[in-house]
Order: sequence, then C-alpha cells, then structure tokens
Amino acid sequence: MLPFQRVAIIGMGLIGSSLARAIAARMPTVHLTVSDRSPEVCARVRELQLAEDVTDNAATAVIDAELVILAVPVGAIAAVAAEIAGDMATGSVISDVGSVKESVLKALTETMPDHVAIVPGHPVAGTERSGPDAGFATLFEGRWCILTPADPASPAAQQVAAFWERLGARVEMMDAAHHDRVLAVTSHLPHLIAYSIVGTASDLETITRSEVIKYSAGGFRDFTRIAASDPVMWRDVFLNNREAVLELLGRFTEDLVALQRAIRWGDGETLEALFTRTRAIRRSIIDEGQDTANEDFGRSHGGRPHGTGDDS
Amino acid sequence: MLPFQRVAIIGMGLIGSSLARAIAARMPTVHLTVSDRSPEVCARVRELQLAEDVTDNAATAVIDAELVILAVPVGAIAAVAAEIAGDMATGSVISDVGSVKESVLKALTETMPDHVAIVPGHPVAGTERSGPDAGFATLFEGRWCILTPADPASPAAQQVAAFWERLGARVEMMDAAHHDRVLAVTSHLPHLIAYSIVGTASDLETITRSEVIKYSAGGFRDFTRIAASDPVMWRDVFLNNREAVLELLGRFTEDLVALQRAIRWGDGETLEALFTRTRAIRRSIIDEGQDTANEDFGRSHGGRPHGTGDDS
Repeated sequence: MLPFQRVAIIGMGLIGSSLARAIAARMPTVHLTVSDRSPEVCARVRELQLAEDVTDNAATAVIDAELVILAVPVGAIAAVAAEIAGDMATGSVISDVGSVKESVLKALTETMPDHVAIVPGHPVAGTERSGPDAGFATLFEGRWCILTPADPASPAAQQVAAFWERLGARVEMMDAAHHDRVLAVTSHLPHLIAYSIVGTASDLETITRSEVIKYSAGGFRDFTRIAASDPVMWRDVFLNNREAVLELLGRFTEDLVALQRAIRWGDGETLEALFTRTRAIRRSIIDEGQDTANEDFGRSHGGRPHGTGDDS
Repeated sequence: MLPFQRVAIIGMGLIGSSLARAIAARMPTVHLTVSDRSPEVCARVRELQLAEDVTDNAATAVIDAELVILAVPVGAIAAVAAEIAGDMATGSVISDVGSVKESVLKALTETMPDHVAIVPGHPVAGTERSGPDAGFATLFEGRWCILTPADPASPAAQQVAAFWERLGARVEMMDAAHHDRVLAVTSHLPHLIAYSIVGTASDLETITRSEVIKYSAGGFRDFTRIAASDPVMWRDVFLNNREAVLELLGRFTEDLVALQRAIRWGDGETLEALFTRTRAIRRSIIDEGQDTANEDFGRSHGGRPHGTGDDS
C-alpha cells in the first residue's frame, strides 16, 4: 500500500523536480500536484509533463493533499508555510527538503494548524545544477534522507519514512539540532570553503583568470563544482545554521593555522602525519557506498581508477 | 619521427607507471627502461609488463637513455639526480613530473653535468591513488603539461614538448616561479584545505566518525577524495613551494574571515553576491574542457547531469 495517495510539491527546482520524477517512476498511481511561484517555471514543468496539476498558487496546490513537501530555499519556508497553512487538509502531513532543520521545525510549528502533522526532512543528495531541467528520477537512490520530527514514532513520521524508502532512499531519524551540527560538517562548511577559495582565486593580480581555469585539473576544479551550487539556497543555509557553522569554522581555522605554521617551519612530520590520517576516511566512505559518482565512473570505464586529474 | 628513441623513467608510482603505459600505447617502438628504488615495486612492474628493462638501480637505468624522466616526490629529486648524474649520456635530456618547479630546476641545475639538457616538466593530471597499479595510459590525454626550461626555444625543450604531445597532452612553456604561483592556486591550496577540513571533521566530539561518513554526499566527500592523495608527495610539495602557498593562504584566510563576519551579522547580500560570482568560473572550466571526469560521467549515463549528490 502506498504511504500517500495525494502529494503536493511546492517549489520545482532541482530537488522538487527530481521528487516529481521519482514519484512518477516509483509510485505512478499517486496523484501529484506541483506548484512554483514562477509562471515561467510552471510553464516549463508543464512542457516536461512532470505532474498532472501545475499551478503558481501554492495554497491551491495543497488542498486535498495528504502530504505536502516544501522544496523551496530554507529562508522561504516560513513565508510559504504561512501562505498554505489555511488550506492544509485535516490529517495531512507537511514536510520539506531543506538543508537546515531546527529553523524549519520552528517555522512549521509556529505556522501550521494543529490538525497538520509536521515531519521535516532532508534528502542528502543533489548536484550543483538548479531548476526543473536539472532534476532526475534516480537522485535519491541509495542516498540518506534524514527526518527530524518531534516524535519519530508517530504514524506521520513513519509514513514519510516509508515514502522516501519507496523513492530508493535510506531513512534516518534525528534530532533537528543534531542534524544541523552534522550537516555543518559534511555539507555546509565544505560549501563555504569552496565558495571562499574560488572567490580568492578569481581576485589575484599576478595570475590570470584563464590560467586558473586552464590548470584547474590539479584539484581546484572540484571546488568550482561545489561553488557552482544555487546561491540563494546556500545563502539561506548559512543564515539559518549560523551557530553550528561559526563554531565549526573556528575549529577549521585553528587547524589550518597549525598547518600554516608547519609549512612555515618546514615541519614535514606534522604534514605527513595528517595527510596519512585523512586517507583512512576516504576508504570508509568508499566502503559505506557514499562514493557513487566515482564508483559509477570507474565501472563505466572498465576499471579506470576513481576520479581523474586531481592530484598534481 | 619520434622525439626520443630511448627513454628511462625513475619512479614507478601513479605518474611514472602511467607514463610507461602511455609510451607503450602511443610510441610502441620506444625502448623503455624503468627504475624504482623499491624491489617490491620493481617486481610488480615486471608482472604488469610495463617496460622491457626494470631495475632498482637508477644509475643503471639512465645509461644510454636520450630522455630521463624523474617521477619521484619533489623532495627526492635532488638525491636521485645526484645518484644518476655521472651516468647521464652526452646530449641527453633530464626532465621530471613534479608539482613544484623552481626548486626542481635549481636542484637539477646544481647536479647535472653540462652535457645534459634540463627541461623540468609538470603534467597537470593524476588521481588520488598511488603506486604502479594505479596508473593508466590515458591519464594525460587532453591535460596540460607545463614545461619550465631556462630556454623554451632550445631543441631539448622542443623535443620534450613533442614527446608530451605524442602522449595526448597539451604543452605550455612557463617560467618556473610563475608555475609555482599558478599551481599554488589551482592545486596546492585546494589540497591543503581538503586535508585540513578532513582532519577537522575527524576530531569532533559531538559528531561521530560514522555520521561524517554516512552523510558525506553533501559535499564533504569531494574533499576526502583530494585528501586521500599521496602523503609524501604532498608533504614535499608544501615544503618546496612554501612562499607561494603561505602568501595565498594568507589571502584565503582573509577572505574566509570576511565570510565568517557576513554569516555572524546575517549579511545575506554579501554571501549571495559571492556565491553568484563563483558560478561563472565553473562555466568557464566546462567550456575549456578541463571538466573531464564529470563530462565523461554525464555521457556514460545518458545525460545524467554533471556530478551527483553534492549539493545539500
């Protein structure tokens, strides 16, 4: 039995449009209504035939939906929730896909009526591309989806978990504040650093932009991919996970200064010791199966090793 | 006509063994002698049949070679050069593949006899894997190889350029000091930061190692790949390109502190402006064709977008 028969998605960017495609592929009998505030995006969504009903009015979209998923930037959640709160059906479930969870849980708790169950969610998946054309049905396969409801044992939480599992994801329940600290490490800080280094590299006087681009295969390239992610989405992530990001940034800066000192004093032992230790983590990630991009790449090229062109 | 008929490679790690494979594939009539100081590596190289002659004695390997390529960590170049200097043939050429060029040019100039031409080189290519099994013949295809000879117009420099072009690389001549500043940006700083952030993430008290690994698809994963690169090679890079790396690190830290301040004060405009600017660089890299890993991946998956699982 399907966990939900009628689903509405608000926001048709990369994640929203991937969700629509995944639902069509994995649960074709679900009735899907989608909404985006941009009429241009709605027109494109109709062309791509991503859903039966498409509207630029979010409140209209949620009427009769058993599950409503907000797939808008974290900073827009409160406003969209206020817009749809009055039209949410009795017994329906509200969820989202935002990369920050404590502020989302708070915003939804403050806006939603009592007859709506709140199950915030975060599929840890994506690419650096944006918009309805960027989505694809298999985005969530084998990825983790973290749910942060107040009560993980509630029927609504269990239904949302079943929903994501039908889409191929693995589900984990977590406290919202803990989620925000974990993702600060595995996602938010890496993005901030990537944005920062790409910014630094484009502002140098003695090295031209074209030289930076030409020789980017030495490692810089990977940072530019991360730093090509959606600007508004990421602005909202940092503004809404301020404390965790700032605390972690402090630690990172300390560690980087220690490395800087080792380089200045020619302390090769400290450098080599760290560089050896970090190798082990990579192996664990490959073992855990979260290295899909490279593993696929290796397989499709007959044993060509993981990744290319990033080591010198 | 082949630029060189007799080639010797000293050091059979990722780059040395890739070179041996590429020469066998692209210039099968070249007589190739290879050497590694480790008898175990030599045994493996023989099993893999990577060269006609395999020896753990570098000095023996270079006798009669028209081109000798040192594929050892930058910190070992001076010692290996001293070891082979007396056996280099008259009119032969010495080159290398190190990621730092000013210190290599200096070491070779100090050790090599006058009858040997010096053409330091750096193929900007690699993976995070190490050792003779990690190499592959197509590693240099479409990649840049930077040469930093004292005289780019010399016959030796032109021959080495022709040699790399035969292996599929694109060649650029550059001043050694400028090379070191450019690569500090496109390769050395990205690696240092990746090593540092992976180190920071593995030392947290409130977040377990397994959580970091589980949710690494949010961006962290890409850093772990870079931070899995060869520890000794990278130790030597930082010790030998100290000034350029430290100067750049100072700039990067300034820029990061400005971002930190923007987050603390909730300055969304500054964040969004930077995040928008960095997108343009990504597009240029794709246009320049230095985005091979992802492009191949996209093609082999029927239009699946560049990269996966790195944006939330």
